[in-house]
Amino acid sequence: MTDWQNRVHPLDEETRSVGIVKRQHVDFDVPLHLRSGETLERFTLAYETYGTLNHDHSNAILICHALSGDSHVAGYYTDEPDEKPGWWDDAVGPGKMFDTNIFFVICSNVIGGCQGSTGPSSTAPDGKPYALRFPVVTVSDMVQAQRHLLDHLGIEKLFAVGGGSMGGMQALQWAVDYPERVANVLFIASTPRSSTQNIAFNEIGRQAIYADPRWNNGNYYNGQAPAAGLSVARMIGHITYMSEYSLEDKFGRRLQNENKLAYSFDTDFTVESYLKHQGDKFVERFDANTYLYITKALDYYDVSDGYESIYEALRRTKCAFLVVSFSSDWLYTAAQARELVDALETLDRDVQYRHVEASFGHDSFLVEVETMTELVGGYLTKRWNRRSNSE
Amino acid sequence: MTDWQNRVHPLDEETRSVGIVKRQHVDFDVPLHLRSGETLERFTLAYETYGTLNHDHSNAILICHALSGDSHVAGYYTDEPDEKPGWWDDAVGPGKMFDTNIFFVICSNVIGGCQGSTGPSSTAPDGKPYALRFPVVTVSDMVQAQRHLLDHLGIEKLFAVGGGSMGGMQALQWAVDYPERVANVLFIASTPRSSTQNIAFNEIGRQAIYADPRWNNGNYYNGQAPAAGLSVARMIGHITYMSEYSLEDKFGRRLQNENKLAYSFDTDFTVESYLKHQGDKFVERFDANTYLYITKALDYYDVSDGYESIYEALRRTKCAFLVVSFSSDWLYTAAQARELVDALETLDRDVQYRHVEASFGHDSFLVEVETMTELVGGYLTKRWNRRSNSE
Repeated sequence: MTDWQNRVHPLDEETRSVGIVKRQHVDFDVPLHLRSGETLERFTLAYETYGTLNHDHSNAILICHALSGDSHVAGYYTDEPDEKPGWWDDAVGPGKMFDTNIFFVICSNVIGGCQGSTGPSSTAPDGKPYALRFPVVTVSDMVQAQRHLLDHLGIEKLFAVGGGSMGGMQALQWAVDYPERVANVLFIASTPRSSTQNIAFNEIGRQAIYADPRWNNGNYYNGQAPAAGLSVARMIGHITYMSEYSLEDKFGRRLQNENKLAYSFDTDFTVESYLKHQGDKFVERFDANTYLYITKALDYYDVSDGYESIYEALRRTKCAFLVVSFSSDWLYTAAQARELVDALETLDRDVQYRHVEASFGHDSFLVEVETMTELVGGYLTKRWNRRSNSE
Repeated sequence: MTDWQNRVHPLDEETRSVGIVKRQHVDFDVPLHLRSGETLERFTLAYETYGTLNHDHSNAILICHALSGDSHVAGYYTDEPDEKPGWWDDAVGPGKMFDTNIFFVICSNVIGGCQGSTGPSSTAPDGKPYALRFPVVTVSDMVQAQRHLLDHLGIEKLFAVGGGSMGGMQALQWAVDYPERVANVLFIASTPRSSTQNIAFNEIGRQAIYADPRWNNGNYYNGQAPAAGLSVARMIGHITYMSEYSLEDKFGRRLQNENKLAYSFDTDFTVESYLKHQGDKFVERFDANTYLYITKALDYYDVSDGYESIYEALRRTKCAFLVVSFSSDWLYTAAQARELVDALETLDRDVQYRHVEASFGHDSFLVEVETMTELVGGYLTKRWNRRSNSE
């Protein structure tokens, strides 16, 4: 999300990169029956793996990405010296949070995405881009698509599925939709249902895209993309990922030019050019229609959807849960995480809840590498060792 | 700001409306020397008054409006039965918070505004709209313009100046710029300087306007206004005025249509149509360029601007202060209000600070009528009586 990767790596001396990795693709010629009632007749998933699958295929961890993520969690595609690593490189590698010395780590681009998996920018059977003809997808549909990938990889049961933000929603949905196929869920900086404020922010982002005439009701693939609208949508999203403290700490009221107010509509404050830069960078790599589809999936997300209550949904689960929230995360708050924890505890599920004091807002899950390594990495190692010992 | 005026008036039995009022205009043929170094050669202010100025002109209260406000604080322009009253009608009238049985209440549209005072949509000396040729104005410039209005009205000293949000900034600036001319400052749901997050939200709103091709670098007065961009800007602003609780309480995840997800990009959740409605309503009454100018004035606002420190700025003040913050206001937080209170206390100024537990976010200052009447109205009456008794 944020450009935290520019900082000095705190774990450089102890850990290593997964090195050069390759994005893979798999085509599924089976229909995906979606929550909406529509069917996607065939689809492709882009995915990457890190580490080695063990002999009984029991060491697989599926990482699920957030709104703007993709399958490229860790490592590099080339040996260009200035290439940035995957979006959670701090977390995946030998000795890291998801320790590739032990685990086989998988991540796939979600269905509806724009980084190799089938989505609105993909070519439909008629040879033209789907655009808005692509069916609306839900978190449950994303998970169903991932289930096909696991079948393809020969993985019957995941040792763990986890992620931050929308990744946490997918992890939770795995436990509800496929209870037999997951042993541990890592639910990080996420929510069991989008709040009204979550929906409101997403809707404003969508309105910014709709407002761009280049969006053209989703039909822009033969012309110019709605970069201006998508950029504004990204800025709106971005501000919800950072805490007031992290904005204040990083930028304050620092001026862009020579400590002097411009008294014009040029950029005055550094935070303005930072946001603009975030917007501009994003439009180079992201599809506006995918932004619409994924935010809609976020809005729809409510683990109790299709059940009488959250209890009825969670009663299906058979795994253990690690739930992590961050004190300065105002997008997916501790109160939202607690709603899940309380329900799981009521159902007497094996749940550990850790509320982390952290100042970087929602992005804390990406930034607080040492805390997260200890917490999530520690949880995984302990569970793995316990499992191995009991074999 | 929000449409709270639809609710049943809680004070109906005890208070009355100011009735039919009239917007007045005064043209000043004197130059306004602005903070930027530029000069506005002549300007017009739109204003309204309520109540009666007493014989020694000592009972005047100036109310300053916020970003989207205007001079029409209270009462009605016509006797149409469905006309909505002024934006703070709950606060101004006989027996109300600003009791027109005692006080002469004034409010003027700020310079740079679009509701009768000179701003970017006004006609420049060359007969064409100013558009972006209008000079950038600051809160201090708004206050300077108001000072001309007070001279015009023959008011040497204000019994009080006050307002919420940007209105509070103006009130505070009055005390710094014209310390001899104000006895009491009412600083409500405001901040002595815009935070990084405040600036960030404003900048995203501006970017939404810039992104609208109809904005055309500000030159749209002969064509179609950038309604789409302004609407998105308003939605971004609007969400910062409400608390998570008030959004959840008012809308939750309630669906627009028959309790069924649309699985399309039509409106699913009520909160979406509410936001869209807020955006659409706003563009009917507000000028996009004014939105740019006023948000810029907000960003620039730092009471210490032009001084060595906040202490040096506040050392100029000679009045008493009532500072009010609201627990759920995440736009201008209690911490921001406390920054002012702490500095005033350090300088041994007469300051009362009241932190109100309220759930409606920034809008609480408009919504919590009974609390505010007791608090602000009580403060004013007490100070007024003390003053009268000592005469």
